Amino acid sequence: MHKKALSKGIFALSFPLAAMMAGGAQAAAPEMTAEELDRAGNIYFQRCAGCHGTLRAGATGPGLLPESTIEMGQRRLESIITFGTEGGMNNFDGILDEEEITLISKYIQQTPEEPPEMSLADIRETWTIVVPEEEWPDSPQHDRNWENFMVTILRDRGAMGIIDGDTKELVTEAETGYAVHVAKSSSDGRFWYVQGRDGRLSKIDLWMDPPQVTAEVFIGIDARDVAVSHYGEWADKYVIGGGYCPPHFVIADAHTMEPLKVVSTRGYDTEGNYVHEARVAALYDTPHAPTFLVNVKETGQVWQVDYSDIDNLRIDHIASAEYLHDGFFDSTGRYFMIAANFSNKMAFIDTVERKLVSLLNTGQIPHPGPGANWIDPECGPVAGTTHLGQGLMTFWGTDPEGHPDHAWEICGTVETDGPGLFVRSHPNSPHVWIDQAMHPEADVNQWVMVMDKETRELTPIHVADRPAEHDAVAVHMEYDQSGTEVWVSIWARGRGHQDDGAIVIYDDKTLEEKARVENLNTPTGKFNVYNRLKKYERG
Amino acid sequence: MHKKALSKGIFALSFPLAAMMAGGAQAAAPEMTAEELDRAGNIYFQRCAGCHGTLRAGATGPGLLPESTIEMGQRRLESIITFGTEGGMNNFDGILDEEEITLISKYIQQTPEEPPEMSLADIRETWTIVVPEEEWPDSPQHDRNWENFMVTILRDRGAMGIIDGDTKELVTEAETGYAVHVAKSSSDGRFWYVQGRDGRLSKIDLWMDPPQVTAEVFIGIDARDVAVSHYGEWADKYVIGGGYCPPHFVIADAHTMEPLKVVSTRGYDTEGNYVHEARVAALYDTPHAPTFLVNVKETGQVWQVDYSDIDNLRIDHIASAEYLHDGFFDSTGRYFMIAANFSNKMAFIDTVERKLVSLLNTGQIPHPGPGANWIDPECGPVAGTTHLGQGLMTFWGTDPEGHPDHAWEICGTVETDGPGLFVRSHPNSPHVWIDQAMHPEADVNQWVMVMDKETRELTPIHVADRPAEHDAVAVHMEYDQSGTEVWVSIWARGRGHQDDGAIVIYDDKTLEEKARVENLNTPTGKFNVYNRLKKYERG
Repeated sequence: MHKKALSKGIFALSFPLAAMMAGGAQAAAPEMTAEELDRAGNIYFQRCAGCHGTLRAGATGPGLLPESTIEMGQRRLESIITFGTEGGMNNFDGILDEEEITLISKYIQQTPEEPPEMSLADIRETWTIVVPEEEWPDSPQHDRNWENFMVTILRDRGAMGIIDGDTKELVTEAETGYAVHVAKSSSDGRFWYVQGRDGRLSKIDLWMDPPQVTAEVFIGIDARDVAVSHYGEWADKYVIGGGYCPPHFVIADAHTMEPLKVVSTRGYDTEGNYVHEARVAALYDTPHAPTFLVNVKETGQVWQVDYSDIDNLRIDHIASAEYLHDGFFDSTGRYFMIAANFSNKMAFIDTVERKLVSLLNTGQIPHPGPGANWIDPECGPVAGTTHLGQGLMTFWGTDPEGHPDHAWEICGTVETDGPGLFVRSHPNSPHVWIDQAMHPEADVNQWVMVMDKETRELTPIHVADRPAEHDAVAVHMEYDQSGTEVWVSIWARGRGHQDDGAIVIYDDKTLEEKARVENLNTPTGKFNVYNRLKKYERG
Repeated sequence: MHKKALSKGIFALSFPLAAMMAGGAQAAAPEMTAEELDRAGNIYFQRCAGCHGTLRAGATGPGLLPESTIEMGQRRLESIITFGTEGGMNNFDGILDEEEITLISKYIQQTPEEPPEMSLADIRETWTIVVPEEEWPDSPQHDRNWENFMVTILRDRGAMGIIDGDTKELVTEAETGYAVHVAKSSSDGRFWYVQGRDGRLSKIDLWMDPPQVTAEVFIGIDARDVAVSHYGEWADKYVIGGGYCPPHFVIADAHTMEPLKVVSTRGYDTEGNYVHEARVAALYDTPHAPTFLVNVKETGQVWQVDYSDIDNLRIDHIASAEYLHDGFFDSTGRYFMIAANFSNKMAFIDTVERKLVSLLNTGQIPHPGPGANWIDPECGPVAGTTHLGQGLMTFWGTDPEGHPDHAWEICGTVETDGPGLFVRSHPNSPHVWIDQAMHPEADVNQWVMVMDKETRELTPIHVADRPAEHDAVAVHMEYDQSGTEVWVSIWARGRGHQDDGAIVIYDDKTLEEKARVENLNTPTGKFNVYNRLKKYERG
């Protein structure tokens, strides 16, 4: 099982998990045809695996193994999937139809099969150069201000929308993996590296006309994040992709995308329990050391992986708390702050010392996304997170030298109307923007909150005004190059409305709508080329 | 499966693998009763798992999975086990009886089941303090010269024989785990840490009268090696035990034996293939850094594990070659030299830089055991290994500063009459001793070879003169405290003769027999308290 090879064809045709999981059903589980298993496997992978695990052993959500699901029975499972639970399970009645809910309820009563491992040779077989280096342009082939491009995830399209921040035009859609989570750039912002959930890691060149993918490689069959080496002589030498399945990370040549090294993240959690599905949640380059941060979700281990010598690979295994999700740096870039959402904590890592500094209880399931740093009148430099489990934005001090009393302690909290996914600010902005995308009601999740940095007062903004069948939420904020505009996504998830998404652009001073980009397929995260390099913060 | 707990009772009563493996037999495999599976599992674990793997996936020996074994069939399997093969498989006709060979041949046609994982809590449950610290003596409770004790593995007894090197008396037998591979001491030589193959890690106090076990903990269900922190302020703070199954290492408090940390070694080999059964072959403390070396057999990774901060555990993953087995240090203690026996190479690690220095092809399956360092007239400081696959002792330069032309290159070879396990020398000795224990014929394996350091000439020594039914070999040499005596084991493996083992003691100058310790149960490795601290080498 473990050494079974994956052919490139499997990746190209479909998500392979369905076929892998089509094996032995338990006696008491409902019967399913191979075709049904295949369809259900696809749905499970796209909609359920993120929280319940590829192996259905549980993660953010509970385990879905036949021991428990058969006893719950088909009707109860269908009801939970349809209406959700108070424990945090989403309702899927607008997302899946009745037949799909029936199918997936049957599916989760089957015995899951362990997917095969992938060797470096398997990974290498998926490596494709689309545009060879000799055809790369020496200068931008278009007159657009590419440093103000918004590289935008079109989640269900499996593409990145490249939007011109000056003209607000959709320049092109570059085909990438499915449901991209995050994109990271080269140190000059020209190349963008995009990790699809299906494991497809793509490199996009913004200088081409139109921008396009130059190379790609599948680093696993289920993945989330990517990072690019920016430090010193290793700038733009390596790219790292992280896998949910297999649970490993892959270091590739950032130039060619050739995979060079694969390292397993299986191991023990902070209490010493073995975790077979120890998934890589999020990846970052550290501004002050030649290292990547590899955050292993279920083990609560932040691995600081030194890329200065990948043959003698130094990894500092920093024990923090479970389950690690997403994080960001303080404004100096020295301290890394990551949500341990199962513990309701933020963990703070000193990336210079390569050690845990502190843990902080913030609220129910912290989720900062790209996070926000600003100067608080009382506490000095602070950083904040929103929460998946409650309408709360919590912020804490991040300046142990200048403001030691506030460092890694809560400076303040503001209550919003509902749980959210993202918080965002900018040094030029008087505001901190907070979404409420996780609330089930449209009259909350179609609004975002804007906090005044000085007064901590909230102003609600009605971003989306969509009918119920669009199942639309306002989600994810990003500033433009100048830091004067804020772009907010309207993500329409309802069946038949996935092309009705939009981005609403606000003047950050007046909080008035300024412009809109319409007819986007499921837009979520947006990455402004200039802003994401954080040159304004770190010089 | 992975989180199934192991009760302490299982360890205490029997080897648990048999019960674990008693699961689903393939349709075409011969039928076996639960009792037969249990017995066969025990035999497999004791005699076969070392080479073929606990999961029978293969390691030094080939995989023994139903896909291949059922096709080979019962008769062919029995024949191979009885007579061995030219490929290196031992003959077991003197070791197992006909019924046992029938049983084990049936057993290896069954589908192996994966043993459960062990959590830190599971390991902690096996922790036992036998003699609490307040009862430890402040000074030796006997008048013996304990620094000249020979701590001797009585392999099949599951005990360490404590032999007085001055009087040649067996002082006591301290009960430990089964088939101990190696013993390591505290930095003053008083306490000895002993890792049994059954995972039992025991601490013995030589100051007690008689010496006895003070505490123990099971770090796995199949293990090999142990090391103790000797560096700086961490001297005698930590002990590390390494597991074949589960594949992990455990860091415990060297004082109390309380388990503190467990780290998985599952991962990818040097070519990027995932290895589920990535076993810890050998463990060492490094004289020049606060680190343990954890050698992961099947992945070819030498992990240099920094114990200066076990909560933020730095591990340098040094890629070398497969399969790592045993190693030793050069005379300065800076360079670590380990056999990668599947690659027929020695790998050289700079433990100060924490990097691979070089790889060297030496011969068929290098196996140095404790190794030997000496001064060669031509090459300066050298080190040597014997080989499991041929009658050859190879030695190479180890002094990159003083003798750069010879460093990590072969200085010379000497051919012996047969493959062996161990090579040994001492700074005060004119000789290098080499055993031939792996040769199938008594007229070779009952002899050892002694090389003159100056002339490289060999003198054969007839250590054992035993009848065939004793199945006795001369194996493993150790110097006494003064470096003037060499102790050689006679290991009688034949059924009914396991108590007929002995140690023959030679005058290293004259090569004449000087004394003998008789009636020992399967004596193999011997560890002289004073010599193993290598104070003569490193001051």
